[in-house]
Amino acid sequence: MSLADTLFADAETDPVVDEPQYRERSQALRTALLSAQHAVVTQADRAVLLVVAGLDGVGKGSSINLLNEWMDPRHLRTLVFEPQDHKGRPELWPYWERLPARGSLAVVFGSWYQRLFSALRKHGPDDPGVQQMIERIRHFEAMLVAEKVQVVKLWYHLSRKAQKARTERLLSDPATAWRVVPADRRVARDFKPMRRAGAELVQATHAQHAPWVIIPSAQSDYRDLATGDALLEALQRPLPHPTGLKTSPATAKQGLPAAPQLDQVDHRITLPRDDYETLLAHSQRQLALKLRHPDFAKRNLVLVFEGPDAAGKGGAIRRVTRAMDIRQVDLHPVAAPSDEERARPYLWRFWRRLPPLGKVAIFDRSWYGRVLVERVEALAAPDDWQRAYDEINDFEQQLVESGSVVVKIWLSITADEQLARFREREENPFKAFKITPEDWRNRNRWDDYQVAANAMFARTHTPWAPWHLIPANCKRHARVAVLQAITRALDAQHR
Amino acid sequence: MSLADTLFADAETDPVVDEPQYRERSQALRTALLSAQHAVVTQADRAVLLVVAGLDGVGKGSSINLLNEWMDPRHLRTLVFEPQDHKGRPELWPYWERLPARGSLAVVFGSWYQRLFSALRKHGPDDPGVQQMIERIRHFEAMLVAEKVQVVKLWYHLSRKAQKARTERLLSDPATAWRVVPADRRVARDFKPMRRAGAELVQATHAQHAPWVIIPSAQSDYRDLATGDALLEALQRPLPHPTGLKTSPATAKQGLPAAPQLDQVDHRITLPRDDYETLLAHSQRQLALKLRHPDFAKRNLVLVFEGPDAAGKGGAIRRVTRAMDIRQVDLHPVAAPSDEERARPYLWRFWRRLPPLGKVAIFDRSWYGRVLVERVEALAAPDDWQRAYDEINDFEQQLVESGSVVVKIWLSITADEQLARFREREENPFKAFKITPEDWRNRNRWDDYQVAANAMFARTHTPWAPWHLIPANCKRHARVAVLQAITRALDAQHR
Repeated sequence: MSLADTLFADAETDPVVDEPQYRERSQALRTALLSAQHAVVTQADRAVLLVVAGLDGVGKGSSINLLNEWMDPRHLRTLVFEPQDHKGRPELWPYWERLPARGSLAVVFGSWYQRLFSALRKHGPDDPGVQQMIERIRHFEAMLVAEKVQVVKLWYHLSRKAQKARTERLLSDPATAWRVVPADRRVARDFKPMRRAGAELVQATHAQHAPWVIIPSAQSDYRDLATGDALLEALQRPLPHPTGLKTSPATAKQGLPAAPQLDQVDHRITLPRDDYETLLAHSQRQLALKLRHPDFAKRNLVLVFEGPDAAGKGGAIRRVTRAMDIRQVDLHPVAAPSDEERARPYLWRFWRRLPPLGKVAIFDRSWYGRVLVERVEALAAPDDWQRAYDEINDFEQQLVESGSVVVKIWLSITADEQLARFREREENPFKAFKITPEDWRNRNRWDDYQVAANAMFARTHTPWAPWHLIPANCKRHARVAVLQAITRALDAQHR
Repeated sequence: MSLADTLFADAETDPVVDEPQYRERSQALRTALLSAQHAVVTQADRAVLLVVAGLDGVGKGSSINLLNEWMDPRHLRTLVFEPQDHKGRPELWPYWERLPARGSLAVVFGSWYQRLFSALRKHGPDDPGVQQMIERIRHFEAMLVAEKVQVVKLWYHLSRKAQKARTERLLSDPATAWRVVPADRRVARDFKPMRRAGAELVQATHAQHAPWVIIPSAQSDYRDLATGDALLEALQRPLPHPTGLKTSPATAKQGLPAAPQLDQVDHRITLPRDDYETLLAHSQRQLALKLRHPDFAKRNLVLVFEGPDAAGKGGAIRRVTRAMDIRQVDLHPVAAPSDEERARPYLWRFWRRLPPLGKVAIFDRSWYGRVLVERVEALAAPDDWQRAYDEINDFEQQLVESGSVVVKIWLSITADEQLARFREREENPFKAFKITPEDWRNRNRWDDYQVAANAMFARTHTPWAPWHLIPANCKRHARVAVLQAITRALDAQHR
């Protein structure tokens, strides 16, 4: 018998409290919850996600309603998700999009466990797809916790007998019969396989940093107290460190292709001016055709541009957008995060900018800032940027699985070429605004950036989202090469 | 002949430039645009909306593409709107939601003129519905400009002959035929009525602070230069002051009901404890039934709670949410704006929180902060809070027209009662966190807040969104009265 089975069996004893007990305990709980919540709000050292799951028809909603009455509802949001909320983006997208800021609590109905529960019922725990879902969830929650989002997971359970009795009691009174939905009746019918899937789910996704708490739900008073106790216990606990998740499942399993490195780039490559216009027009047309193809309506394109200052990212991007219907592109220049962004996990601001199907998102600098500028300038703690490699790989894999084509471009120039371009910018009145003292400061750390970039290639050059290192001392060559790389990537994925 | 007719006739001369002219002018334009854009980005004193409208099939998209090539595309976003983007919210909601921050430029395809153009074609300019649309747009744009969002409107026009020739030229080449969409062919057929509707639209919505510029579009070079010139001219102009819009159309026309004032509130009203539980349960059930009724799926509910500190807003809100399915409510405590919010028009942060159909949004403090705390504490300039009354009335009217029921609650307590509650909070360990030095500071300005509140009632007590002043020295009375006010409002609108 698994641990989850034992816990479920305990819950099926259908424990109760009597009224005096309830009164006493609920009063103490209430004041304690209020002050624990207040600590979260004022310290703003964490966000809290209370994941509500378990059998249908056991009164989960009522318990959460009560929490709203017990606590300060201004700082307790309820997030409800429906299965199709992601609209063609990765399955986890809706949860990312609505992540609460640090200093707030949110209750989650319709969490990421909804889909896993269905899959477990249908395919069982040994199915590879189910295994992958489990691993992804484990990584998602580990990332959340590492990013100061506490995950508290409640599984509501009771005996078959008690569930049936509850549904019948509600149905017998016209004033409450409306509360019974078809899902509740299904539980009464399919109790056994549902219990099995629930136990498997809990067993597979329990983690010390994101534990499941089983809430016995036969009696509403007991259920309410257990709900409050579980939350209180979590709020009073220091935020745990996620454990045992050093490598993302994807990179561990598949093995990486040989990653490119900066010293392999041949910066002598040039493209003569005479050939440039022809090749550029041709490459733009090739790309335009791909993006106009009906197949593209079922995909989207995510372009990442990285490289040193003055590498020519802006110019290359303009040549790319020229091949597109401007209405299908969103360009996202990435600079310092806003305060709404700073209060949430690092990748949040990129998740919220993912393109819908048929569209293109261009990131002028990107999530790789974490392992480049934030690493070199010590804006992120070593622990944080070191785990970013795996998080990014996982993020990009989810993108690709949902139909995105992810093309990552590094425009590579030499230090001498950068110096020449900086000087030219300073002298040209129409380019002077492009150069700032910060650019010169960054230049002083040239070698550090090279080291960071090479480490980044080594760790994030994946089969699903490889890096393209493009020699860019010759702008003409770089622009055509960028267009060709994108078109080839679309080709490769159009099978 | 109207001014717009004259401008259209000018455009129908189908002017052209020759190649040397184009080359010379485009080069100068390009550098000037780049530096003007740079000024907007670095000064961040305004956002710019470039509204692209006019006849179909004249190459608007190509000109905008070119702007992206000429300017820094990192700071030039393209926003594309479809007719059904508002999903049951007010028609202007999508435009509010995606308003750019100050310091950025956005091109708008599918603007608010799309719907007006269709309506003008269908009903003509004298239709009352069309008149209302025009007035709403005029107010929207005046508000935008007052809030530092510059509105630059381009109307693309050419002669019937030139439009037809362009379409035929595109169709004759298989490489370009795909660019011709059904709308383009309709222009060729219905040129005359379209021209008429366009001229009426331009005539009715031209304003000094948000002028239309007619872009002759027969020749692409001329069209591109005219587009760039219009934008450059706007960027180089100081941001204009909106004029002639002191009173919103709604309040001017309909006359206000007699507004309540604070000295009319009878604070002696109490509700005995014995009656409270019964009445509370009854009122909650009444409200629950309304929100569960199938009719409510086609509406939504927007609740505003205002009143002095310690008036009992939190407690009243909890009694309200208890009558709801917690999954259908979003509670928005309103505190200081984030930096993303500060960079946009004042009402933006409320527009982005409007509920979808079938849902409830509760604002614990609200957009009225502008004419209360921001007025009293001089956080807003007098001009800004004075125009807020009309903007708020217009905002709420749009909400109601789109199906929202807007209920505005003021919980009124006396100064003595507030003092007693402050003292109780300080003494009660579980309430101490509710009282801060700021509460005491606000209390010192009690009279100023009363004056501001009375002015607010006088200016914003509208037929579509009246104020409910509820005596709240007795919390029990207040809680029941709040529930009843909401239920009655839902009743009144359920016709």
